[in-house]
Amino acid sequence: MRIPRRQRLLAVAVAYAMASIGTVSYAADPLPSWNDGSAKRSIVDFVAKVTKEGSPSFVPVAERIATFDNDGTLWTEQPMYFQLLFALDRVKSLAPQHPEWKDKEPFASLLEGDVKGALAGGEPAVAQIVMTTHAGMTTEEFDQIVRDWVASAKHPKTGRLYTEMVYQPMLELLSYLRANGFKTFIVSGGGIDFMRPWSEKVYGIPPEQVVGSSIKTSFEMRAGKPVLVRLPEINFIDDKAGKPVGIHQHIGRRPIAAFGNSDGDQQMLEWTAAGSGARLCLLVRHTDADREWAYDRSSSIGHLDKALDEAQAKAWTVVDMKKDWKVIYPFEKR
Amino acid sequence: MRIPRRQRLLAVAVAYAMASIGTVSYAADPLPSWNDGSAKRSIVDFVAKVTKEGSPSFVPVAERIATFDNDGTLWTEQPMYFQLLFALDRVKSLAPQHPEWKDKEPFASLLEGDVKGALAGGEPAVAQIVMTTHAGMTTEEFDQIVRDWVASAKHPKTGRLYTEMVYQPMLELLSYLRANGFKTFIVSGGGIDFMRPWSEKVYGIPPEQVVGSSIKTSFEMRAGKPVLVRLPEINFIDDKAGKPVGIHQHIGRRPIAAFGNSDGDQQMLEWTAAGSGARLCLLVRHTDADREWAYDRSSSIGHLDKALDEAQAKAWTVVDMKKDWKVIYPFEKR
Repeated sequence: MRIPRRQRLLAVAVAYAMASIGTVSYAADPLPSWNDGSAKRSIVDFVAKVTKEGSPSFVPVAERIATFDNDGTLWTEQPMYFQLLFALDRVKSLAPQHPEWKDKEPFASLLEGDVKGALAGGEPAVAQIVMTTHAGMTTEEFDQIVRDWVASAKHPKTGRLYTEMVYQPMLELLSYLRANGFKTFIVSGGGIDFMRPWSEKVYGIPPEQVVGSSIKTSFEMRAGKPVLVRLPEINFIDDKAGKPVGIHQHIGRRPIAAFGNSDGDQQMLEWTAAGSGARLCLLVRHTDADREWAYDRSSSIGHLDKALDEAQAKAWTVVDMKKDWKVIYPFEKR
Repeated sequence: MRIPRRQRLLAVAVAYAMASIGTVSYAADPLPSWNDGSAKRSIVDFVAKVTKEGSPSFVPVAERIATFDNDGTLWTEQPMYFQLLFALDRVKSLAPQHPEWKDKEPFASLLEGDVKGALAGGEPAVAQIVMTTHAGMTTEEFDQIVRDWVASAKHPKTGRLYTEMVYQPMLELLSYLRANGFKTFIVSGGGIDFMRPWSEKVYGIPPEQVVGSSIKTSFEMRAGKPVLVRLPEINFIDDKAGKPVGIHQHIGRRPIAAFGNSDGDQQMLEWTAAGSGARLCLLVRHTDADREWAYDRSSSIGHLDKALDEAQAKAWTVVDMKKDWKVIYPFEKR
């Protein structure tokens, strides 16, 4: 059989490309920022098991669904949830248009730099701050507001962009799962429209694979142009028992792997674990006060108590940040 | 440079495979059930335009989102919406457990075979039928109920399974778009959990790409096992102005192509058209009383009136089923 010269050259190129792909994916460690240990081993073993054709625990590609909490699981959530820091910054930006805020809580305290005082009003105060800063504009306007903030706002402790404060080991885990045919989703208590403007660039997770809390929107015509207006009304809270509900609503199948770090993720992990076949349920435990933060049972942010008990009782994987992770943030790498 | 014999053989095989793939995708008509005409041309021209790298109308793969209405766009919706036929069948199955229905409308009429009488109660009657048949069980139980019905129930006119009454030209269109890097979604007024059990097999659309109307669910522990229970309470109506809202909620980006057949799709097409760059907005018009049904402005099912005016005013693509489609259903093909 004769093959024309151009096809022969192409074939050689393809053969070389395949050989080099082979080298990369088999030889290199797909999780280089993870120390060897039980956490890393449980991940690698699980992936090997569900991807091995012919094995009883094999899972077809279409069913390889993995869900990730965001705050405290993919990025830092201290000294407070980043979305709340966004809202506080937004109050400051909007203040010139709201002279009445000077005498109105929680805004008055906030504008004097007294965050603690502002949040002393509890949930109603937070709700007022969130609705004031997240509603009233179109979805396109809000998208731009978030993009602008993410591109410029700096974390109070590290001085880094918030999107730099993502966990390098988790970025590797996301890539590793996707390279093995998984579809990766965010399932977060955070705002769905707060995460979507940057989730694709930062995590490789496109907007249609982001599940989160939301406010209602309304379709309107403005000057002949259709817009979606963000209303000051809760649509859905994607936290605790809401996470399996959100997963069912958006994904419509049960994950085979789920990743969280707090009691807010407990029901997501239970829902994932309750399916038949191999499952991976993993909690990130914040144990590194030097490189990140250390907190669990007594923290109001990222409260981890009942879920930790259940993880220990059911032998879910618990990541000890300090021991299991070689680096925390991408910017630590040389 | 020397290549080992095994790799050389592999390379030759790959080269042949690539050459033959090339032949298939360029030579064969990807829309063989579509007659040549303006509708087919507008589809092919649009796809060529957005996939041509370097062209000003090029759209990156991640943004190639196409949304399809289901009833009357992907499958038949006559003599009434198939989901309503499912509900009526379900009432009959449940009747032995509900002796009280004999004296209670709308059930009494239904059980006597008087569908028209049962539906005379209008929306409250329909809502009662839907809630009785769609709520009260777990999501897994409902999934199985739908699977069983879809595998056995027959259409009253053709005697075919409902999932055989899908439009062959639209199946080709779905495949054609996907082969060109599009992600295809259903955005339907029908129930999200009524469509998901069969959408992947029938349309190649996985559950996470189905958007539809829904009732609320609640996460519960039953005998130590977590379940989601379907509640008799509307969560979301994915119709008319609800369609752009559902698209935003589930997909989080604006489609560049949208396909519908009724006034219920008008806002989805408007929302799609209002984005910048090349757009394809298409309405299927039911004009074939012999092979399918003919109805539009005066029909209560698949009512097509204002959207048709807008399509004509804005030069959206209107498919004339009778003229544009060589075959309607897959079973017509020899």
